[in-house]
Amino acid sequence: MIVAKTLRADQVIACCREIARCTEVGGETTRTFLAPSMHRVHTLLSGRMKAAGMKVRVDAAGNLRGVLPTSTPNAPRLLIGSHLDTIANAGAFDGILGVVLAVALVEEIAEEVRTSSPLAGGLRFEIEVIGFSEEEGVRFSKPFLGSLALVGELDAAILARTDSTGASVADAILQFGLDPAELPGAVIDDSAFAYLEFHIEQGPVLESEGHALGIVEAIVGQTRMQFLFTGQANHAGTTPMGALRRDALAAGAQWIVEVERYANACPGLVATVGKVESSSGAGNVIAGRFTATLDVRHAQDEVRRAAIQHYVEYAHSAGAARGVTIACTTSIDQAAVPMGSELTALLGAAAARSTGREPRFMTSGAGHDAMIVARRVPAAILFLRSPGGLSHHPDEAVLSEDVEAAFATGMEFLRGLRDDRAMLERIAARTSRPAREDIHA
Amino acid sequence: MIVAKTLRADQVIACCREIARCTEVGGETTRTFLAPSMHRVHTLLSGRMKAAGMKVRVDAAGNLRGVLPTSTPNAPRLLIGSHLDTIANAGAFDGILGVVLAVALVEEIAEEVRTSSPLAGGLRFEIEVIGFSEEEGVRFSKPFLGSLALVGELDAAILARTDSTGASVADAILQFGLDPAELPGAVIDDSAFAYLEFHIEQGPVLESEGHALGIVEAIVGQTRMQFLFTGQANHAGTTPMGALRRDALAAGAQWIVEVERYANACPGLVATVGKVESSSGAGNVIAGRFTATLDVRHAQDEVRRAAIQHYVEYAHSAGAARGVTIACTTSIDQAAVPMGSELTALLGAAAARSTGREPRFMTSGAGHDAMIVARRVPAAILFLRSPGGLSHHPDEAVLSEDVEAAFATGMEFLRGLRDDRAMLERIAARTSRPAREDIHA
Repeated sequence: MIVAKTLRADQVIACCREIARCTEVGGETTRTFLAPSMHRVHTLLSGRMKAAGMKVRVDAAGNLRGVLPTSTPNAPRLLIGSHLDTIANAGAFDGILGVVLAVALVEEIAEEVRTSSPLAGGLRFEIEVIGFSEEEGVRFSKPFLGSLALVGELDAAILARTDSTGASVADAILQFGLDPAELPGAVIDDSAFAYLEFHIEQGPVLESEGHALGIVEAIVGQTRMQFLFTGQANHAGTTPMGALRRDALAAGAQWIVEVERYANACPGLVATVGKVESSSGAGNVIAGRFTATLDVRHAQDEVRRAAIQHYVEYAHSAGAARGVTIACTTSIDQAAVPMGSELTALLGAAAARSTGREPRFMTSGAGHDAMIVARRVPAAILFLRSPGGLSHHPDEAVLSEDVEAAFATGMEFLRGLRDDRAMLERIAARTSRPAREDIHA
Repeated sequence: MIVAKTLRADQVIACCREIARCTEVGGETTRTFLAPSMHRVHTLLSGRMKAAGMKVRVDAAGNLRGVLPTSTPNAPRLLIGSHLDTIANAGAFDGILGVVLAVALVEEIAEEVRTSSPLAGGLRFEIEVIGFSEEEGVRFSKPFLGSLALVGELDAAILARTDSTGASVADAILQFGLDPAELPGAVIDDSAFAYLEFHIEQGPVLESEGHALGIVEAIVGQTRMQFLFTGQANHAGTTPMGALRRDALAAGAQWIVEVERYANACPGLVATVGKVESSSGAGNVIAGRFTATLDVRHAQDEVRRAAIQHYVEYAHSAGAARGVTIACTTSIDQAAVPMGSELTALLGAAAARSTGREPRFMTSGAGHDAMIVARRVPAAILFLRSPGGLSHHPDEAVLSEDVEAAFATGMEFLRGLRDDRAMLERIAARTSRPAREDIHA
C-alpha cells in the first residue's frame, strides 16, 4: 500500500523532530561529530533502513550507510545523503531532512517492488543512503569530516585535529567504538555514479518567489578576507575635520558602502561585511584602527575575483583620501563547484513533473556535502524552501507540502534514471573532479 | 633682576616635569582626585607661592589657592588657574602647565614690585592662583570637581559619588585631611572679576598653522548620542543582495559616511563616530544589529542642533532603504560656553604685542575649568601649541619658546588690566552666567 502523500510528508517531518531530541545539550538540539547522542540517531534510522531491505553499516568515519540492492548484476550505485550532525542549538531539518527523505524514498521503492507497482523489476542500480557524521565543523573547526572520508581525504592531519577538550578526531572515532585504521573502507568505489542531496535552502529566495523547490546548478565560490584600516587616534573635539584627521572608521565606512553598492549592481554576487571593530573604546576618540571582515561569493570565479580586486583597490582609495593605510589578508579563497549538468537537468525535469511548474534553478550560497562528493562523482542538490529564510536556529522549519513535493521529485528522478540507461551510463562515465583542500560550508 | 626669558620658560617646563613625578602609579604619571601624591604637589607649589609673597591655603575641595595681595583697598581679584590632576598615564603639561605659568607670573610681578620695575605701584587688583584638585573626571567619573566647588556646585549628590573602591568624594576629602563641611569657604565671592587659564591646545590646529598661541573665543557645545541600527541577522552566502537583506551594518556605514561629509561641509563643525559594534560574531553572518556613538561639537548651538537633526533624519533614511530601524539616545547635550569678550580681546592684544603677529582666535573643542568658572565670572583661555597635536599621552610636550610667549602674553595681559581701569570695572560688572549641570570635558 502506497502511503498517502501528506501523511508521508508529515511522517518525514515527525522523524526529523524525533531525531532533534537526540542531543548532547538538554533543552536544545546540539549534536556534534560522534557525540554519544549520535548512537541513538543511528539506531532510529538503521531500524527503518533494515525494515526496507537495506544492508546497513557505520563506516570508520561514523557515517551511517544503508545499501538497497538490486537484482541487476554489477549494478552501479546511486548515493543519496546529507548530514546527521548539527550546529549548537540547531533546528530540526538542516542535514537530517535529506537523510530521512532518502530513507523514505527507499521505503517507497521497497514497497513498490513488494506490491509489483511501477518500479517492480528493479531500478537497475543500487541506492546507498548516507547519513554523514559531520558537516558543520563545530567540534574540530573543520567541516565535512564525513564526506571527506567518503572521497578518501580524511587524512592524518585531519585525524590529529583536537577539540576544546584536547581529544583528536581519531580519539573521537575510537571513543565511538570505531577504528580509524578502517577508514579506507569508507571510501566509495567506482560503482558510485551519482550523488543526490536534499537540503533546506537556508535562505529566503524560494519563499520570496513562491517556489517549493530549487535545483542547485552550482555551489558558489567564496573569498573571505580581513581588512585593517590604520589612521591616527585623536581627540574628537580638538581635531578639526579635514586634513588633520586620519579617521580609520570613516575610511572603512566609505568602503563598506561601496562593497554593498558594487554587489547590488552585479547579478548573483553577494558581498558582506559582517564583523567590524573600531580601536576606539570611547565615543570621543577618533578611531585610529578599524577592522572589517569581507565575505564575497559568486558561482563564477572570475566575477568573484574581479569583485575582490575592486574592493581591495577601493579600500586603498578610501584610505588614501584620509591618510589611512590598508592591510588585508585572505583566509579563504575557494572556487565554485558546479553540479553535474545531466543530473541537474534530470532533477529539474523531475521537479517540473511533480510540481507542474517550471523549476527554479539557482546557486547555493553555502557549502554542502555535495561539494565534497562532487570531487569523485557528479552531484545534484534539491533545495526545499526555508520558511522565513531561517536556518541555524531552533525555529528552522519546513512545509509539509514542500516535503511532499521533494519526495515526489525524488521518485520522478529515480524513475528518470531507471528509464534512460544511456544517460545513466553517460553520467557514470563522467570524469571525477580533482580534489581541493580547505572547503568551507 | 628679571630672569632671562628662555631660562624662565625652561624653569616652568622643568617644574612641570618635577610635578609629573608625583604619581600614584610608579613609572608613569597618574594623579587622580586627592590621591596621596597631591600632597607633594601642594608642597612644591605652595613653597614657591609663599616665597613670592602669596597667602596660601588648600580649600575643602582640595584646590590649592594662593593670593597675591595689593596695596589698593577693597581691590577686585583676578583668578588664574588650571588643574593639578591627570588622567591615567598622562603627560606632564595638561593642566599643570597653567598653574606653574600662573605662579611664574606672580613671581615676576613680585620681583618687579621689589625692584621698582614697571609694575611697581601695584596692579590695583589681587591675583589668586588656583590649582584645581580635579578636572579629568577619572576617579569619580565626574569631571570638574575642583572648579565646581569654586562656583558652589559641589553638592551633596556629587559628594556621595563613589570610586571603584566604594569611597565617596566626601570620604576622599576627609582622607586628604580636609573637611567637606567647609566647602562653602571654597566658593569665590564678588571680589572675583575675571578668570584666566593657560592650557595646552590638545589638538593639532596651532601647530599646523605655525602659531605658538591661540585665544579661545568659546568652548564648543557638544552632543553625544548612541545610535542602534536593527535589521535582520542572516547567512551571508544564502541571502541575496537587495530586498531580502536587512543589513544593519551597511545602513550604519552609509550614515557614518554622511556624518563625515556633512561636517566637512560645515565650517567649525566636528562630528565623529568613534566606537562601533556589529552584532555579528562572524564574517559570514549579515549583522542584524549595529551600534555607533556620535560626538558632535560646534561653538554655535544652533549649528550643532541642525547637524544633529540632519544626522538623525539621515540615519532613518539609510535604514529605511534596507528595512533597518533606528533608535537613538542622547547622553550629553551641552551648550557652548562663550569666553568673556572683553577679556578675550585684551588677551588677543597682549598676544599680538608679545608675539608680534596677529593672534589666532579659535574655539576649544574640549572642556576646561574655565567653562565652569565662566558661570560666575568672565573667563579667558590662552592655548599653547601642542607638538604633534598630542595630549593625554606620556609623550605630550610643549615648546620652550611657546611657554616664553605665553608668559610674555600673560604679563602684557596683566599690564593691560592695570592700565585700563574703566575696562576692569566693566568686566567686573558683567552678569554671571547661569549655572548648568552635567558639563563634560
